[in-house]
Amino acid sequence: MAVRSVDVPALVDAARAGAPRAVARLISLVEDAHPALREVMAALAPHTGHAHIIGITGSPGVGKSTLTNALVGILRARGKRVGILAVDPSSPFSGGALLGDRIRMQDHALDPDVYIRSMASRGHLGGLSWTTPQALRVLDAAGCEVVLVETVGVGQSEVEVAGLADTTLVLLAPGMGDGIQAAKAGILEIGDIFVVNKADRDGADATVRDIRHMISLGDRSEPNLWRSPVLKTVAARDDGVAEVMAAIDDHYAWMEASGTLRDRRVRRAVDEIEAIAIQALRIRIGDLRQGNRVDELAAQVVDGSSDPYAAADQVVEALT
Amino acid sequence: MAVRSVDVPALVDAARAGAPRAVARLISLVEDAHPALREVMAALAPHTGHAHIIGITGSPGVGKSTLTNALVGILRARGKRVGILAVDPSSPFSGGALLGDRIRMQDHALDPDVYIRSMASRGHLGGLSWTTPQALRVLDAAGCEVVLVETVGVGQSEVEVAGLADTTLVLLAPGMGDGIQAAKAGILEIGDIFVVNKADRDGADATVRDIRHMISLGDRSEPNLWRSPVLKTVAARDDGVAEVMAAIDDHYAWMEASGTLRDRRVRRAVDEIEAIAIQALRIRIGDLRQGNRVDELAAQVVDGSSDPYAAADQVVEALT
Repeated sequence: MAVRSVDVPALVDAARAGAPRAVARLISLVEDAHPALREVMAALAPHTGHAHIIGITGSPGVGKSTLTNALVGILRARGKRVGILAVDPSSPFSGGALLGDRIRMQDHALDPDVYIRSMASRGHLGGLSWTTPQALRVLDAAGCEVVLVETVGVGQSEVEVAGLADTTLVLLAPGMGDGIQAAKAGILEIGDIFVVNKADRDGADATVRDIRHMISLGDRSEPNLWRSPVLKTVAARDDGVAEVMAAIDDHYAWMEASGTLRDRRVRRAVDEIEAIAIQALRIRIGDLRQGNRVDELAAQVVDGSSDPYAAADQVVEALT
Repeated sequence: MAVRSVDVPALVDAARAGAPRAVARLISLVEDAHPALREVMAALAPHTGHAHIIGITGSPGVGKSTLTNALVGILRARGKRVGILAVDPSSPFSGGALLGDRIRMQDHALDPDVYIRSMASRGHLGGLSWTTPQALRVLDAAGCEVVLVETVGVGQSEVEVAGLADTTLVLLAPGMGDGIQAAKAGILEIGDIFVVNKADRDGADATVRDIRHMISLGDRSEPNLWRSPVLKTVAARDDGVAEVMAAIDDHYAWMEASGTLRDRRVRRAVDEIEAIAIQALRIRIGDLRQGNRVDELAAQVVDGSSDPYAAADQVVEALT
């Protein structure tokens, strides 16, 4: 298979200089699982580790893009370069949500220091685990000091986004998800900061109370433990957004002081390394399969002259 | 970790002699991913490949257990030894559905030539792919000439059960799932035989028509291709069950004549071997992880002195 060649050093230099097209091209290489990725990641590595990754998750319609837009406003006023990655785990295709996001992010769509990208998350391994961390590396190396990762909450993906972020914001709206729903979805454990948006609606205080109560049940009152605040916003008119930003800053300071930041990042890197290693091994098994080796072993299993474990041993041995 | 030792040869001999307790113990070893499994599978291998595996899937309440019960009646009249495996993919726990199944299967609960077992399917790898094929090997080696695998249809699991069976029955009921629902769920592709149960209810003929129409759209009219029949039953009073059994027999004869039976079984063995090999490799990575090797590599990635691909290469190299 002929693959379009990529001038990786030039592309990385351009991305580091802030050229949006170079950043876009690098993220496309990630989405396509392009063979040049290995070279790309090696070239990016020395320039990573500087971005504060903020995950924002919640059900559709809860106001994630609106809050993101408002937070970007504060970050830009501070002179920060910002990346926004909108991940749609339900779609195998990218770009679908792009137009909608751009419209809601219109305050920043033309700002050269704000990079906005929608991407599909279903890579070769499924889920967020594969493509998103690599796209985050691209934005990090490209000089984004803060990257906001927005995910539509669909079950498992909410929990996965927390694995990718330094700080995870869980957004709720009154009447959309009460505390029990949140508990069921497993999001109480992942939120570093809870935000009840659209707080001018009926039931906002009840939702805040619910969430606070549910969190307190899981609180083990350890010293030096982060206590997730539950805040109210009306992001569409900027109400409460400064307080959310302050909580994000507090969380970052706490993570740095407690060593949690490095711990989380090491754990993330472990998962990423493991996923890539397993993928490499799968590809090697696929090669064996094409060479009919696995088919031969399978025929022996069907005939009863071998069993799946003995056959798997031979596969592992052939790989190793 | 001390593990209770298992006398595998004695257990396998007892299971082959038809002792239900030995069969039960072997399936529990499968569910527990017991270290003795490897020895168990090796001992079972020469005795496998004789059972006709029939998958029965459909939404809750559609009458799967009732139809299964009726089919077992016919098979027992033929003098066949029968295994019934009820798989609940939504539950990580086993035994939950056992009582209900036993009640619906009461015609056969005391028959020594009918082995009934409920099991959880969420094993270490998730989904059906891990535990169910191994449990099927146990029942096959224990002399069951037919094994009926009943799965509650919850999305993906319906499609997975088809991967495990020689013959897949898809059960529907009037008004529960019309053709379009079935098409959405992806079950039109997996059914070797469609059964509209509770056919004395309103809408049965419409459902049959819907399914026939939808199937015909996908029909490529290849010669030597199996054409999935759409049958009507009222399983609770045995109406139409003999016709379902005849269709199962026809399908088996067609599979043998066309070579499909062996092809399906080889493909299944390939998947099983691959899953076990990947699991073995994951365990080896876990060993590296415990030895802090992966953590060290991850720290290098976080510090920017390495990248995930280079680190994964080292993991793969350490394994191989």
